[in-house]
Formats: sequence, C-alpha cells, structure tokens
Amino acid sequence: MKAFEKNIRKVEPYVPGEQPGRRVIKLNTNENPYPPAPGVQKAMEQISPDKLRMYPDPTASVLVDSLAEYYGVNKDQVFVGVGSDDVLSMCFLTFFNSEKPILFPDITYSFYKVWADLYRIPYICPKLMDDFRIRKEDYYQENGGVIFPNPNAPTGIYEGLEFVEDIIAHNQDVIVIVDEAYIDFAGKSALELIDKYENLIVVQTFSKSRSMAGMRIGYAISNPTLIKYLNDAKYSFNSYTMNQAALVCGAEAVKDKVYFEETVQKIVETRAWSVEQFKELGFKCLDSQANFIFVMHPEYDAKEMFEALKKEDIYVRFWGSERIEQYMRVTVGTREEMEALFAFLRRYIKGE
Amino acid sequence: MKAFEKNIRKVEPYVPGEQPGRRVIKLNTNENPYPPAPGVQKAMEQISPDKLRMYPDPTASVLVDSLAEYYGVNKDQVFVGVGSDDVLSMCFLTFFNSEKPILFPDITYSFYKVWADLYRIPYICPKLMDDFRIRKEDYYQENGGVIFPNPNAPTGIYEGLEFVEDIIAHNQDVIVIVDEAYIDFAGKSALELIDKYENLIVVQTFSKSRSMAGMRIGYAISNPTLIKYLNDAKYSFNSYTMNQAALVCGAEAVKDKVYFEETVQKIVETRAWSVEQFKELGFKCLDSQANFIFVMHPEYDAKEMFEALKKEDIYVRFWGSERIEQYMRVTVGTREEMEALFAFLRRYIKGE
Repeated sequence: MKAFEKNIRKVEPYVPGEQPGRRVIKLNTNENPYPPAPGVQKAMEQISPDKLRMYPDPTASVLVDSLAEYYGVNKDQVFVGVGSDDVLSMCFLTFFNSEKPILFPDITYSFYKVWADLYRIPYICPKLMDDFRIRKEDYYQENGGVIFPNPNAPTGIYEGLEFVEDIIAHNQDVIVIVDEAYIDFAGKSALELIDKYENLIVVQTFSKSRSMAGMRIGYAISNPTLIKYLNDAKYSFNSYTMNQAALVCGAEAVKDKVYFEETVQKIVETRAWSVEQFKELGFKCLDSQANFIFVMHPEYDAKEMFEALKKEDIYVRFWGSERIEQYMRVTVGTREEMEALFAFLRRYIKGE
Repeated sequence: MKAFEKNIRKVEPYVPGEQPGRRVIKLNTNENPYPPAPGVQKAMEQISPDKLRMYPDPTASVLVDSLAEYYGVNKDQVFVGVGSDDVLSMCFLTFFNSEKPILFPDITYSFYKVWADLYRIPYICPKLMDDFRIRKEDYYQENGGVIFPNPNAPTGIYEGLEFVEDIIAHNQDVIVIVDEAYIDFAGKSALELIDKYENLIVVQTFSKSRSMAGMRIGYAISNPTLIKYLNDAKYSFNSYTMNQAALVCGAEAVKDKVYFEETVQKIVETRAWSVEQFKELGFKCLDSQANFIFVMHPEYDAKEMFEALKKEDIYVRFWGSERIEQYMRVTVGTREEMEALFAFLRRYIKGE
C-alpha cells in the first residue's frame, strides 16, 4: 500500500439495481412505467441557452414555490435536493449528531446504514416483527433520532397516521424523519402532522409517483426552523445542486395534478390485479401499498426464480440477505409488462 | 433551545454571488458570457420522456466516455459530479482523512475551508506572498494533503507546470489536488502529469470555459486507483447524482471543440483589452489568466465603487476580507458588457 493510500476513506459501495442497456422488462428499480406529465417535455425544450450558461438559482425557488403551493405550506418549509437520497443524506448529516444511536428498522432502505457509517453515526436496528411490520414500542427507547420509511421498503407495508404519530409523539426530544418515497401509492401522509410536531421531517421524491427518476429531485417538508438548518448545511457543501433542467421540469410536473392522479391510479389498479395473479400462482405477497410487491413462493427458490426471469429479460430485485432470502421485489409496471411477467411465471410454475 | 436542536449541526453557510432576477450586467460569478455549443440545446430537446422516468446511468458513461476521449485518457480515469463543488467535496471526504493538517493558500476558493470544517479535517493556510503568488516552499512541510487552484481564485494568477510539479513532487506521500476551474483560459494543465505522479488529481468544470454553469457538471481526472476510491465514496452517498439532462448535454458540449476554442479565445481577447482599460483608468490589475480580473484602485475605495456599480446594475464581486479589502473581482463578459462597465468607470473616476 502506498503511503498516500493510508488516509483514504474506504467504503462498502452500494450496489444499485441493474440498469441494462438494452430493452428489457424492467421491474427492478421501482420506476414509474408511465412518462412524466406532458408539460415536462415542453418545459425542457424551452430552457434557453442563456439559462444554461448561468448558475441556477441557488434557492431553487421555481421548484420550491410549486411544491409549497401544491402542499399548502410556506416556501420556507420546503427543501429540495438531488433525489431523496441527497435530501436524506443531508438530513443525516444535519440532524443526527448525538452520541446516542439513531433507530431504524433492520429491514428497510439500505442507504440508511450506509449514511450512518459514512457520518459515523451510531445506530440500532430494531427487528421487524415476523410479519415484517414495525413494532412501534421498539422506538420508545432512548435514541439520537429516528428514521423509517412509510410505506416501508422493500416490504411495501404502510402504517396509518395514528401509528406514525405514536412514534413521533414518543420521540419529541429528537428529530424524526418519515421517508415517504412511496406515499402517493398508499394513504395519508405525515405532512398532516408537521404543524403539530416541531421535530418532524417528511421526505418525498419525484422518482416514483411523478415519473422523474431521471431528473433526480427529492424534497423535505418541515417547519421553517428545521428547513433552515438543512439549507445552511447544503449551502456549505454545494450551493447549486439543482440544475436548470431539474428546476423547470420539476416545477412543471407538480402543476399537472390530473395527470399525476391518473398515473398513480393506474399503478394502484395494476398492483391489485398483480397481487391476485401472484396469489393464484401460490405466491405469498406482503400487503403492499407501494409501487412494488414483495413476494415469495413457498415451493420455489427465490434466487433461482430471479435468475430464470433475468434470462427471459425480465428484471426484478433480489437481495438474498438475512430474513428475506426467499423474497423478490417486483415493481408494478404497465399491465402489459405484468402480463409478460405472469405468462413466464405460469410456464415456470405450472409448466403451462 | 429545544432538546432536539442540541444535536443539529450548525454551519456558517457560504454566501454565493448574487443572482439578481432582472437583467443586469452580471460580472460577479465568472459565468461565460457566451451560450453553450449549439448542439447542446438540440441534445436537450431530444431527451425522451422515457429517459426521464428511468434512473440515469449511475456510471454516467456517456459523459465519462466523451471526457476520456477528449483528454486521451481511459474511462476509468474520469470521475464526474454535480459541478466541481461536488467533485471537490467528495475528494475532501475521500482523500483527506489524515490527522495531519491539509494545506491550501490563505487567499483562495472559500469552499476549501468550509469542506474542511464540515468533515473536521485540520488545515493550515500558508499566506500568499505580497504579490499574491503562492510560495511553493510553504508546501514542503509535513501535511495530510494539498489542494490549490491553478489559476488561483480570486487572484487569477497562473503558475507554470514546473511550479505545479515541484509541489506535487514534494508531497508524494499525500494526495495533491490541482483545482483547474479556470485552466482553459490560462496555460498548460497538470493533466500532463497524471501518469507520472500517482498522488495527483486534477479537477475541472463545465461552468466556466464550457458555458454550462446551469447544468452543474464537474470532473476529476487521475489514475484508475484514485478514481475508484472516489466512485466508491460517491456510490455510498447517492448513486445517481447526474441527471439525464446533465449527462447528454455535457457529452454534447465536449464534442464541439471548435466552438469551445473560439469562445475561449474571445474571452482571452476581451480580458487583454479589459486589462488595458483598467490600467488606463489607474487600476492595479493582477496578472489574470482566468475569465476574471482582480483589480484595485489606489485612490478609490473598493466597497464604494462596488456599490456605485451595483446601483448602475453592474454586478461585480467584492469580499472586503483581510488582505483583499480594496480588491474587486470582475468577470470578463462580452466586449459590449465590458464597454458598459468602463463607460461607467470613466464617469466615476474621470467625471467624463
């Protein structure tokens, strides 16, 4: 090892879901199968070259304003970032500076652990119950902060507002982050609680329900005090994270409520239909309220099935990690994509 | 103070140059006065909605490949990020983990100090000499890493390759980062040295010479070993930082070498002409090799002049900080913009 390598930070890099170059049935990264709102393309085409040569507005006001209007909050209650990964990472850095461990479920979004390690934040991961639900009493213990997704990933299980409020209410001396990447496919958002609890931050994303994973936009909504702390931290890193295209396309996407609701509705319907199909084939499905379904088959090995699907150019997600070795996570695609999936699974399972 | 505020990270936020909403003569943030290469707008218009709904390629290969080809290096020698701020911040995080202080000049890009504080990296800032040049012997002391811009900012002073190599050669046990945001307006790049020194990283940006501050693209070029460390750190933060628009527009910009060289040439010519104008008015100009000029007038107070200019809707940059209280940094705009600046300064100074 060279002398200069001694002080280099070594990390375990996260392995994202595969992005195959060729056209496949891609049900592995929870993308929306429908394109963004029609206005988005137009907004992109109208970005003038003059806008490209200049720094973007560091306050991202066009995007912040549109989100504030949509959610009926003030502009100083919205923070935007490069996908919810950027927003969440900034939240970890800003809010989790206690000596006490933060809490998040053992089975959840895998980046929480990565950011905690990166920022040297101690953590404890209470185990999900056997039915993969969060036990809220696990979050009553002393801690340095709490984060959990609702719906949780990769389970898809959604907990109602009372449950969420109970965790927030038991943790008023620390920051509680509710990661709502999939909330639009589920139920009530914890946004209803931000006026009631000063320690609450709700994080959402454009990557799922708004069909814009490619533009990298996430946001946090909270009270002005916490949002200011986040902005201060962000400005000290990199003042201009949101490029011109993200700003104008994002703002445009938020405006088209009708298109948004139609798209979400189609996915929710396809999800219900897909769950039926899975069950008919003997799969066990968790009760997903997200745009994916977490499934296992008591008689077929998940890894073998995952690989058989891949050979057919049908990509789903498989981790093989503890407690979920027999599960696959399947994104809800278009009805046609799901039909192709089930046609294969019928052959695989029933020999049809 | 609320209990939950105790563990919130408090930072001194960086104050970026103003971005006024209305049309002004904007010579305060070193943007390029010319639009990006014509192909860029077309590339933007051709991004399909399907690309927007999907996650971007986490390896950013279309952009990485175009840079590798342009600079005649391999693909595994290029790292890209959200502006050079993102790239530099990731370099600090990845490479500066020694107990020993890193070194950078006292007068330089103000973010170095901010990132060092953020990541709790100790640092020493050797003083520039009285003529605002770096004294290379200051960088012979024991340290945990070295970073300096060439040309330096906000002085604009460029040091030749021998000088740069001397600093690198004296620091082969640590990582040396040469921040070349303005190199295309100056002279030889330290890129020539990356095969010779394993501890060297060269960072550049699309925000200045490539007229794309609005798209947020920066990059580092080094050997495959150091680039892999950077990518590992980046993937552990946020796998998808570069959105689709940045990827395709960036790749397109790199292809148009003729347009790039013409634009740079125009700015270099306007710079030479502007220096003459400043001198005629009695200003002292440092020998700038960047797209800005660092000036002071022995008889006129910089702060008053800065404010008088602002009243005329001519924005330049002024810090008022130690050793540079009497200096203003003026971005080289178009010839027309500079003529408007000098017309005002002639009135201000000569009462014309």
